[in-house]
Parts: sequence; C-alpha cells; structure tokens
Amino acid sequence: MTDDPFANPAGTREEILAATYRALRTHGYADLTISAIGDEFEKSPSLVYRHYDGKDELVLDCLSFMLERFEARMTDDDISDPRRRLEAFVEWGLDEEMPPARRRMVSTLIELRSRAIHDGEYADHFTKSDEVFEAHVADIVRSGIDQGVFRECDPDRVAATLVTMLTGVLFRWSTHDTEAWLEDVRIEIETYLEATLYRD
Amino acid sequence: MTDDPFANPAGTREEILAATYRALRTHGYADLTISAIGDEFEKSPSLVYRHYDGKDELVLDCLSFMLERFEARMTDDDISDPRRRLEAFVEWGLDEEMPPARRRMVSTLIELRSRAIHDGEYADHFTKSDEVFEAHVADIVRSGIDQGVFRECDPDRVAATLVTMLTGVLFRWSTHDTEAWLEDVRIEIETYLEATLYRD
Repeated sequence: MTDDPFANPAGTREEILAATYRALRTHGYADLTISAIGDEFEKSPSLVYRHYDGKDELVLDCLSFMLERFEARMTDDDISDPRRRLEAFVEWGLDEEMPPARRRMVSTLIELRSRAIHDGEYADHFTKSDEVFEAHVADIVRSGIDQGVFRECDPDRVAATLVTMLTGVLFRWSTHDTEAWLEDVRIEIETYLEATLYRD
Repeated sequence: MTDDPFANPAGTREEILAATYRALRTHGYADLTISAIGDEFEKSPSLVYRHYDGKDELVLDCLSFMLERFEARMTDDDISDPRRRLEAFVEWGLDEEMPPARRRMVSTLIELRSRAIHDGEYADHFTKSDEVFEAHVADIVRSGIDQGVFRECDPDRVAATLVTMLTGVLFRWSTHDTEAWLEDVRIEIETYLEATLYRD
C-alpha cells in the first residue's frame, strides 16, 4: 500500500510486476489484460507469458511484492515518536487530499480484495496483508507503552480495531458518492485513541 | 439487510425480486443470470424479461426494495431501550454464529458494493444505504440522550463511525480466512461506546 513500490525495479520479475502495477492503476482489475500489461512493459511482452500463466498469478505476485516492500520499509527503522507514527497511519487512510494515482490504486486494491469472496488465493493474500498491517500498528502501540507515552492496553486489540476501521473507511470511500462522513470518523477515532491510549 | 425481506411477496414485481434475492444468495453476483432468476421464479420466466432490461436493473431494484423494507421496519416503532438497540445493531455485524444463509447474503452485498467502484448506479445505492443506516443509528443515539441513558454527544458522528466500522467488519470477514480479530474489535467498540456514550 505504498505509493510506488516499483520506483526502481531490479531484474525482469520486478519489471513485469511494475508493469502490472501501472496497468492495474490505469485499467483496474476487470479491464486488465496480459496485453495491457505488455503495453506497460519496456521489454518484449512475450517475457510476461514466459513467466506467468495468467492474469491472477501475475496480480497475486504483484500484491505479494508490494506487501513485502511495505513490510521491509516498516520494520527497518526505530519508532522514535509512536504518537506521530500512529497518527500518520490513521491519516494515510483518512486523507481527503489523497493524490489521484494513490486513490486509483486504493480503489483497485479494494476491487482485488472483493475477489477474495470467491477466490481463496486472494483471501490468503488479504489475510496475510491484514496481519502485516496489524503487526505494524501493534509495534507502534507497544513502543508507545514502553516509552511511557501511551497507557497500558492490549496492542493487538487496538491494532485489529484500527486496521478494521481503515478497511471500512477505504471500502466506503471507494464505493460512495460523498465524503462528509470522513470528518466525523476522524474525530471519533481520535476520541477512541484518547480514551484508550493517549496520556493527557 | 434483513434476513428475508421477501417472506410474503405481494404482486409480480415482488415475486421477481424475491426470485432475484434467492438466486443472488445461491449464485452470487458473478454467476447470476436472468435464466437462474427465472429458475427461482414460480411463474413464467418470460415475465422477468418483460419487466427488466438486464441483470443490473434487476439487482439494483432488488437492493432498493430490501433497503425500503429495512427502513420501514426500523422507523415504525419507538426506541424504548436505546442501549439494547444499539448493542443489537453492533452485534448483528459481529455475530460469529451468523446463519449460513445470512452470511452468504452479506458476502453478496459486499460483492455488489464493490461494483460501486466502477458503476455509479451501485455507488448511488450504497451511498443511500449508508445514509439510511446512519439515520437509524443516530435516531437510537438521540433517543438515548433524550432518555438520559446516553451522555451528550454528536449522534451523527457516532452513527458515521459505527456504520463505517461495521462496513469494515463485514468486508473483512467476507474476504478473510480467520476471525480471531473479531473478538478484539468487539471489545474495542465497547470501549469506544463506554468512552463516548454510556453513563456509568
């Protein structure tokens, strides 16, 4: 869920996945074809066919790569300001000024996630993805408790709640005409965090 | 989002919509065909074609009918016990023992909602649906404040938050392999309501 995990692709696999990412962002899943991915690819499109059997195999590998990148980025630094980090995580999902490219990508991720209703491989991916995000949020909460800036609480419970809430937020704004509710939700998440986590 | 809003269909339109509902619950959206709806219909399937131009027109009318039924049921009685009513609303979405038929229907509603990413008519429906649910929750909160059992707060903000949270819960469990997070979320929603609404 980073903005561009494919900025500097290394090797053919990453180049193919970068092309898949760009094609997904442009066409969405429903209109995605191997040929559209080939159009985004700087080498011969036949290389795509040589490496992947079909669209879902490619998309799932692309999702998996993005998640690994996110995970690597999130775990490679110390959490020096837990409250700022937690607020940045929440704000990421609530950002009304989200850049159009990221907005399209989030909608595509929501579209892909809805495939998990009928496809176990997508369900496996998004289950793992939720676990990665939850572990990240729980780490932030744990750091805050250790550093004395958050109150004692169950970090896993807070993490499950924030990840579920942001899943709802992103699903809702991807499928919704209005955004007035977003400001209401922002204030109430703050209320929840004040009640659970923040020291006065 | 009631369990069976089509228990006693009155007239041809309602019979067609009842057949659509049963076919959706059995096949999901992707595998839904007018012919599958015809199979669920007790009169001549040609009547379906006479009333509707295609699958989406039928599905959208079915969604709209279900929402009207829900709205009528929710507004026709007084809210005598606001806390119990609010808890029932939250529990409805968090119910791990949800009956299989309702579970399939919720997954289908999530699948239909994801169509709103690319289809404005579905976006219109689910925007309206969220508004109906929010108005219902806000009415409960307002009753609780008037009766002195809830603290002063902004009923619309609480409603937007609970509806978004339950949207996240239902999307997550429809697309997820595990359900351990559900109990975490239940406890934290309670924490939020204790902090915002409930008097000690």
